[in-house]
Amino acid sequence: MNHFNQYNSILQTALNQVGFPEQPHNLYDPLRYFMQLGGKRMRPILSLMACKLFDKDFEKALNVALCVEYFHNFSLIHDDIMDAAPLRRGQTTVHKKWNENIAILSGDVMLVKAYDFLANYPPQIFQELFLLFNKTAKEVCEGQQMDMDFESRNDVNETEYLEMIRLKTSVLLGCALQMGAIVGGADKENATLLYNFGENLGMAFQIQDDLLDLFGDQTLVGKQVGGDVLANKKTLLSLSAMHLANNDQRNTLRSLAKIEDPQLKIEKAKRIYRDLGALSYCQQKMNQYQQKALSALEKMSCGASKSDLIALAEHLSTRAN
Amino acid sequence: MNHFNQYNSILQTALNQVGFPEQPHNLYDPLRYFMQLGGKRMRPILSLMACKLFDKDFEKALNVALCVEYFHNFSLIHDDIMDAAPLRRGQTTVHKKWNENIAILSGDVMLVKAYDFLANYPPQIFQELFLLFNKTAKEVCEGQQMDMDFESRNDVNETEYLEMIRLKTSVLLGCALQMGAIVGGADKENATLLYNFGENLGMAFQIQDDLLDLFGDQTLVGKQVGGDVLANKKTLLSLSAMHLANNDQRNTLRSLAKIEDPQLKIEKAKRIYRDLGALSYCQQKMNQYQQKALSALEKMSCGASKSDLIALAEHLSTRAN
Repeated sequence: MNHFNQYNSILQTALNQVGFPEQPHNLYDPLRYFMQLGGKRMRPILSLMACKLFDKDFEKALNVALCVEYFHNFSLIHDDIMDAAPLRRGQTTVHKKWNENIAILSGDVMLVKAYDFLANYPPQIFQELFLLFNKTAKEVCEGQQMDMDFESRNDVNETEYLEMIRLKTSVLLGCALQMGAIVGGADKENATLLYNFGENLGMAFQIQDDLLDLFGDQTLVGKQVGGDVLANKKTLLSLSAMHLANNDQRNTLRSLAKIEDPQLKIEKAKRIYRDLGALSYCQQKMNQYQQKALSALEKMSCGASKSDLIALAEHLSTRAN
Repeated sequence: MNHFNQYNSILQTALNQVGFPEQPHNLYDPLRYFMQLGGKRMRPILSLMACKLFDKDFEKALNVALCVEYFHNFSLIHDDIMDAAPLRRGQTTVHKKWNENIAILSGDVMLVKAYDFLANYPPQIFQELFLLFNKTAKEVCEGQQMDMDFESRNDVNETEYLEMIRLKTSVLLGCALQMGAIVGGADKENATLLYNFGENLGMAFQIQDDLLDLFGDQTLVGKQVGGDVLANKKTLLSLSAMHLANNDQRNTLRSLAKIEDPQLKIEKAKRIYRDLGALSYCQQKMNQYQQKALSALEKMSCGASKSDLIALAEHLSTRAN
């Protein structure tokens, strides 16, 4: 993943150059603060990588990269309000550090600013990028709404869950890649194959995230493991366990929610998910999406090496955070 | 204002045709609900009127009209959360009828949908519209932030207040008109003059709104008069009264905030604003902006009659709601 750092540093320079107006302080200070919290910058780096497949001057994709990164950060600021999350990347969230009103409004202006970057391309390309981006933006909102709706439902099935993570997470990865490819001059077929690569990669990534949340190494994951179990959150793990269980086991699964001791709750969940085969089922699902992603990438034809994207996709199954 | 109704009915048909996806219910039901609450539809009608000055087929401006109306409604949904407002147009606000999270997210998707309409124009025009709209969208957010900041400040001056209402209200009127003109084929100079017309009209409109809030006839205004005074809100009336007052009178003005009896508070405010000349100062300011608006309209050259826009501007000073 050496190239990853190179893309990241070019991206960071671009992010630093953009900046925000000084005034009103209470609108733009939260955005300055939030952007310097960092993050993996995975989405914008995918845009740069996708562009480089078709044009060695991949910096021309910086504007789409900035657009997806700003959009992603807008969605995090608003999601943090909705989740009443006190921390983001180990630091205080915007709505806690300032207040909810400021977090709503600075999120809004962040979304508007995300669009700005797209208008730096010539009219034809701009419109093509815009249509893809706007479709994706709506889908991300739909995914977030489904996620919130699931909290109060007890009849969520696997298909619905997968559709939720596709909308909430995967489509933005697909969009980031396809926009990078468009800017690099890819034809429709190859740009779509890259979208498919990203969409499947996103599914694999999210399932792996759910697995790491419970089965990851706390020191490597960098946060308290078992957060999803403690919050009684629906994940592919919990849904597939319910599906694989017989009536007795289902009652045991339901009783998990009532355990108060966090350590005991986490240990019980790990054991039952393992015993029921839910862990291996999820790993299998994750691998299937990873293979689908790699197969879309294989079908795609371009002049440059695909090694960076292959490495990124393969890194998934071994990553520890 | 006969033509107004004609534009309104064409607009309403277009609004009815747009609609929202069925699912997720909790994302799109609030938007269906909010759009049927109605409203003056002033902004989109300005777009249609502006287009008609340059092209008799003014329905081609329906997409910009829908864009500004959706944007305006997005801003109302989020503003209502920030103001903790229970009612909008006499009906329950989205965050009260559903909850704050749903209001945040359905507002977000409304903003994204506003952009969609612009992409229905050819690439060159789309980009021109987009740049104006996006600049305006940021300004509206800045205006709303200034408005919130003013609540906790005691040193707001008239210049700042006027800049706040320019950003929060007027620029969107200018944008609605200029976008309509662009779609109608106006040249840069005439399109800019229409923007100026709208910007000044917006200033006059907002000042008149502040005056009607206190001095309007309750049965005609359609809401409790004196709302701004009861909420100790800063308006041009209260700021100019402070400016015109001597030390003793300033103390009397400050003591207004402490009066508990609503009727007494409103009566005292009306008397002192009148006595200090703040009422006539604001009326004068309002007239100045109205004249500036009409003068920009006069300079603008087009093939069609400007009578609808002139009537709209003149209606301002006599309107009772």
